[in-house]
Amino acid sequence: MLEAAVSLLNERGVPPIEIARVVLEIQKGYFSDLTLEECLGAVEAVLQKREVQHAVITGITLDVLAERKQLPEPLQSIVSRDDFLYGVDEILALAITNVYGSIGLTNFGYLDKTKPLIIGELNSRKNGQCHTFLDDLIAAIAAAAASRIAHSHRP
Amino acid sequence: MLEAAVSLLNERGVPPIEIARVVLEIQKGYFSDLTLEECLGAVEAVLQKREVQHAVITGITLDVLAERKQLPEPLQSIVSRDDFLYGVDEILALAITNVYGSIGLTNFGYLDKTKPLIIGELNSRKNGQCHTFLDDLIAAIAAAAASRIAHSHRP
Amino acid sequence: MLEAAVSLLNERGVPPIEIARVVLEIQKGYFSDLTLEECLGAVEAVLQKREVQHAVITGITLDVLAERKQLPEPLQSIVSRDDFLYGVDEILALAITNVYGSIGLTNFGYLDKTKPLIIGELNSRKNGQCHTFLDDLIAAIAAAAASRIAHSHRP
Amino acid sequence: MLEAAVSLLNERGVPPIEIARVVLEIQKGYFSDLTLEECLGAVEAVLQKREVQHAVITGITLDVLAERKQLPEPLQSIVSRDDFLYGVDEILALAITNVYGSIGLTNFGYLDKTKPLIIGELNSRKNGQCHTFLDDLIAAIAAAAASRIAHSHRP
Ligand SMILES: [Ca+2]
Ligand SMILES: [Ca+2]
Ligand SMILES: [Ca+2]
Ligand SMILES: [Ca+2]
Repeated sequence: MLEAAVSLLNERGVPPIEIARVVLEIQKGYFSDLTLEECLGAVEAVLQKREVQHAVITGITLDVLAERKQLPEPLQSIVSRDDFLYGVDEILALAITNVYGSIGLTNFGYLDKTKPLIIGELNSRKNGQCHTFLDDLIAAIAAAAASRIAHSHRP
Repeated sequence: MLEAAVSLLNERGVPPIEIARVVLEIQKGYFSDLTLEECLGAVEAVLQKREVQHAVITGITLDVLAERKQLPEPLQSIVSRDDFLYGVDEILALAITNVYGSIGLTNFGYLDKTKPLIIGELNSRKNGQCHTFLDDLIAAIAAAAASRIAHSHRP
Repeated sequence: MLEAAVSLLNERGVPPIEIARVVLEIQKGYFSDLTLEECLGAVEAVLQKREVQHAVITGITLDVLAERKQLPEPLQSIVSRDDFLYGVDEILALAITNVYGSIGLTNFGYLDKTKPLIIGELNSRKNGQCHTFLDDLIAAIAAAAASRIAHSHRP
Repeated sequence: MLEAAVSLLNERGVPPIEIARVVLEIQKGYFSDLTLEECLGAVEAVLQKREVQHAVITGITLDVLAERKQLPEPLQSIVSRDDFLYGVDEILALAITNVYGSIGLTNFGYLDKTKPLIIGELNSRKNGQCHTFLDDLIAAIAAAAASRIAHSHRP
């Protein structure tokens, strides 16, 4: 299941190292000795959780089916136009963020709104691609990894 | 969107009145004058919420695609065998339950475990049908409707 | 109960109009005709919800008791130093944000991190005051009000 | 922090072994070789999580202050009468249940409604005691421990 989730992320153009860069970006101000390597370790730990794997697999599958126009209506239209009132992508993301407790919520919301690095790139890749779920999933994985780092840097 | 959600519920064999029966079952002990009609009104109010419509449409679509074997692997296997470690169905349900606050949580969990009336029937209709999401969606709609009734029966 | 919640907010230096300013700040880019008056109306609608009133009353009471050093240890120390690993303030906030669905999550996280207007002022009022819960409560009320506006500005 | 949380549970009459008995009760039907010892191990693992410790400390402190009539109004009345529309106890519990993913939700709701063993005893100890938060906290710890066992009994 871990391999399935990581494969899907890679196929959609988001290797774990790109998520680690987002984690480093938001946490380097708090922990000056933080390395990209440690961030990657935290991202991999998040991806080990079955709850996270299930959310990633479900969300990316919906993105892919929307891209191939294989969803029945009305879901096809809702997902392919990334309707801003559709909140199922945030709901799946919340399940990921919760894995290390509620302190991840703040980072998730901030990342989802400011869309740094790979998260912003996904939003601008617009030739027929659908990333309605993927951007939230990545923001959530990065936020959970940031929580993990915050917990572990505390005696 | 409301019609789309209600149509899907009807097509899957769950007209709103069946959900109202579940609400009556769990609330009649608390409010002796409660009628099936009032329960139906509460179910309809829950279904008016866009958050609920989106969860219903997304969940039932995944059930239908799993039944038609049109989901890519590994999601096809996960959803069609209703893997008990797969929690995305509970996550979608939680988004519905939350609509009237956290007091719905208890009823949701109770319904999901004891599976009265239509919820139990879904579980036993087993000739190729997939209701991995539907049973949780119904338990959640019934729990949210029960919360609405509890809130409104208080001065 | 509504009056109790609004009184507590006023006593803590946060009249609803200050929360409305935060809502206007984050939503004016999306809805060019949005007025402070409409934002205030949305904030008042959020405060009408019993779930919100309960969260506000509980959180502010804990802030006040911490300020008066009337909490038993270890809670007194945790709340008064606003331990960044303490997530109960975010949990209460989430219950508020959920009232209009999951799209409020993003705005909540963004507000909690960037702390505009009154939210930032609370953080800088530092002579013995404790606002561990209050800043998250306000960010959450503003985020829920923003969701309400987003839902209502859509045909 | 772990000791503080466990001490509070002991002082309130709920040693971890009593929570383990609840876990065994709800899981023995699924895993015939499950022992009380393994259930206790799972409860202890849940209690190791800082998120859980914070929820336990916050909730029990509110129960204790309500018992001593040291909460300001209106929170004193709300908590001491265990108002069934007050959902903050369920919200804290949800933060615990989420620690091992959403599959814990169902068990939490079931336990909160059926109140077996120690959970039911708390409800009947009525001479001035207040367990508004404690019953939900215990149901949530037991539900999270049950999820942990379910995850670990799967290849
Ligand atoms: Ca999205
Ligand atoms: Ca299910
Ligand atoms: Ca705070
Ligand atoms: Ca309770």
